[in-house]
Amino acid sequence: MKNIIVQKFGGTSVADTDKIKNVAKAVIREKNLGNDVVVVVSAMGHTTDILTKLAKEISPNPSSREMDMLLSTGEGVSIALLAMALQAQGCKAVSMNAMQVGIITENVHSKARILEIKTEKIKQHLDSGEVVVIAGFQGITDDFEITTLGRGGSDTSAVAIAGALSAKRCDIYTDVEGVYTTDPRIVPCASRLEQISYEEMLELARVGANVLHPRAVETAARYNTPVRVRSTFKLENLGTLILGVDKMELHRPVTGVASDLSQLRVVVCDVPDSPGTAAVLFDGLAEENVSVDMIIQSYARKALNTNDIAFTIDKTDLDKTKEILEKVKSKLSFGNIFIDDKIAKISIVGAGMIDHPGIAAKMFRTLASLDINIKMISTSEIKISCLVEQSRANDAVEALHKVFGLDSNEIAEVKGDLPNI
Amino acid sequence: MKNIIVQKFGGTSVADTDKIKNVAKAVIREKNLGNDVVVVVSAMGHTTDILTKLAKEISPNPSSREMDMLLSTGEGVSIALLAMALQAQGCKAVSMNAMQVGIITENVHSKARILEIKTEKIKQHLDSGEVVVIAGFQGITDDFEITTLGRGGSDTSAVAIAGALSAKRCDIYTDVEGVYTTDPRIVPCASRLEQISYEEMLELARVGANVLHPRAVETAARYNTPVRVRSTFKLENLGTLILGVDKMELHRPVTGVASDLSQLRVVVCDVPDSPGTAAVLFDGLAEENVSVDMIIQSYARKALNTNDIAFTIDKTDLDKTKEILEKVKSKLSFGNIFIDDKIAKISIVGAGMIDHPGIAAKMFRTLASLDINIKMISTSEIKISCLVEQSRANDAVEALHKVFGLDSNEIAEVKGDLPNI
Repeated sequence: MKNIIVQKFGGTSVADTDKIKNVAKAVIREKNLGNDVVVVVSAMGHTTDILTKLAKEISPNPSSREMDMLLSTGEGVSIALLAMALQAQGCKAVSMNAMQVGIITENVHSKARILEIKTEKIKQHLDSGEVVVIAGFQGITDDFEITTLGRGGSDTSAVAIAGALSAKRCDIYTDVEGVYTTDPRIVPCASRLEQISYEEMLELARVGANVLHPRAVETAARYNTPVRVRSTFKLENLGTLILGVDKMELHRPVTGVASDLSQLRVVVCDVPDSPGTAAVLFDGLAEENVSVDMIIQSYARKALNTNDIAFTIDKTDLDKTKEILEKVKSKLSFGNIFIDDKIAKISIVGAGMIDHPGIAAKMFRTLASLDINIKMISTSEIKISCLVEQSRANDAVEALHKVFGLDSNEIAEVKGDLPNI
Repeated sequence: MKNIIVQKFGGTSVADTDKIKNVAKAVIREKNLGNDVVVVVSAMGHTTDILTKLAKEISPNPSSREMDMLLSTGEGVSIALLAMALQAQGCKAVSMNAMQVGIITENVHSKARILEIKTEKIKQHLDSGEVVVIAGFQGITDDFEITTLGRGGSDTSAVAIAGALSAKRCDIYTDVEGVYTTDPRIVPCASRLEQISYEEMLELARVGANVLHPRAVETAARYNTPVRVRSTFKLENLGTLILGVDKMELHRPVTGVASDLSQLRVVVCDVPDSPGTAAVLFDGLAEENVSVDMIIQSYARKALNTNDIAFTIDKTDLDKTKEILEKVKSKLSFGNIFIDDKIAKISIVGAGMIDHPGIAAKMFRTLASLDINIKMISTSEIKISCLVEQSRANDAVEALHKVFGLDSNEIAEVKGDLPNI
């Protein structure tokens, strides 16, 4: 049996008919390597924007069911055109929408999750030598309702299809060349990673590396499907392979450095030091869907019997948070509230971190040597995050990138000692 | 149980979002009359042209399967937008594509015929008070392949859905005000018919009255579903009701006069007067899909033992016909071939004709009184056609329209005698 490769091309890769012809070439190249190929495509270029504009002309608040019906037509166009382009270049091909494949989702519009992908028909077409071109972003319910998957939808479709087919690899073609050790706009000598684990990728994606939607990464991790992120426009570049820790060839203690400017810090002072206090506060936030990231509770001031509680939220949730605190005040007495929106969360990520003691200490020392004050700290098994002054964010990223040996293309094994900065 | 009315709106009626909002008003008006309403729509305006152009940019000869996949997206857009427009005006509505409804066709692309229409889901939605907006022009096979119905497809969808639902009526909204006694461009005082039978409509459609595709008329006749052709832009006008002869209130001997300039006449001289001669000739034409309309064989010339055979074909089939005659010559000797492309076929149509003897004679006398020579004649139970010089076509139509009492809006019972012209 041949290996199956799933290729995914986004909207910019199929924005016009010339680009679609180029995509066909990339597909045929993969097919000619002896693989069975399944292609997942998004709608052409700005199709979604154009359709959304039409809907808004008709209704300020169109129903999500009809929006899904409307938007799903976009991929119908791109799959048919790509299949035609493949046929025109002498490659047998067939297009399939979500209903034809059987991409079953939950019965939720505009952000459905995939429940099951039927593979029977895809395999029939592959067995008869055809390239199968599948509409991304869309699904159907058991009852034939059309759904869409929301943000990161086409990537998620591709990775889930690859998982269901036990594909050898899912290649995500995009307009970046891969995953970098940090944002190359901050650190020009950031290097492209050849490999990264799902977990590291998730941490990097959540703190701002905008390459692959976390949902797609989570789906890949669930199926343990290797995902390669690569550039549509530089096919000679192999991009970055995202895969399970167990399959990784090398484990660097630190894979990447990320900076996140999207949060702000709220400090609630003089909260009573009694059981259930934190629950009242954070239940109130959770009920209104305010995501809280870092949380710190100070040591209790025994004399006053109060604590200070500090936490970070998305800047967009500030107004909502203030309202919630106002409401909570009836159940929970507290003093002043301080809002600090000039902060940055700096994170180092690495699956090998757990085996290398001293990484956290090295991070703190590096920041200290630059006279950068750490306002909050949070850690997971593969990530350490520090909240710092926003004005020092880039200095922190540059220094950490260098100190953890990410400045070159070489895969460096970092020692636990402090470098000379 | 409420009556079901099926409304069909073509591409020009839904060409932009303002027009879609107007269509929603027409739908709600029908709903407010106390009916259950099912709406069938075509793709917006020039969508099909735009999509076809994209396909041609990619491939000079795109596969019909992928063309169907591509073109079927057009109705996906219009049904969603119309459902949104209905909802925005406070009317419960739901869109459904052919797959969701279950419009089952044969497994032929670009011109499939409908085999079955499932009504269960449509009825469920109607029972819950929703207007159901269905994509015209498209179908699916048993195996979930997407098909399109070809020319006249959306009209056919609407009429077939009306038949399957035992709808009280199918209203075809279009840019003409109904069916006329003849082409108003030739005879300005042509009158709109209030009623016409399926059979009459078929004869008129075939000879050039371009209002409703014959396929849709045939489908309506099969289900005996009344069809009203009416203007989207003049809702106060009730248009023309097309229905079974049994349901018609009035039978005029002549309902309409039509002129067809699309044919030419071929005369094959000196064909041997022996059994099977005509079969050799017309089998040859049929094999190459050349439609022959009128046929005349002259009385045999006993001395020479030969006939002349004359027939009419579409002008577009001339080259093909010449080639076929060339081939046939090996099996069948004949003399000269004359081509006459300056002809017009003038027809009078009327379901009541059979009960009114003398209609044919009256037609011939009318043409004779104008010194118009009749080159060929063919008749059916509800139609008499005469081939005349093309230059006299309009004179013939005008005179026949007048002599059979069609010039006014009154429904006139015509006597068998010759009028004074």
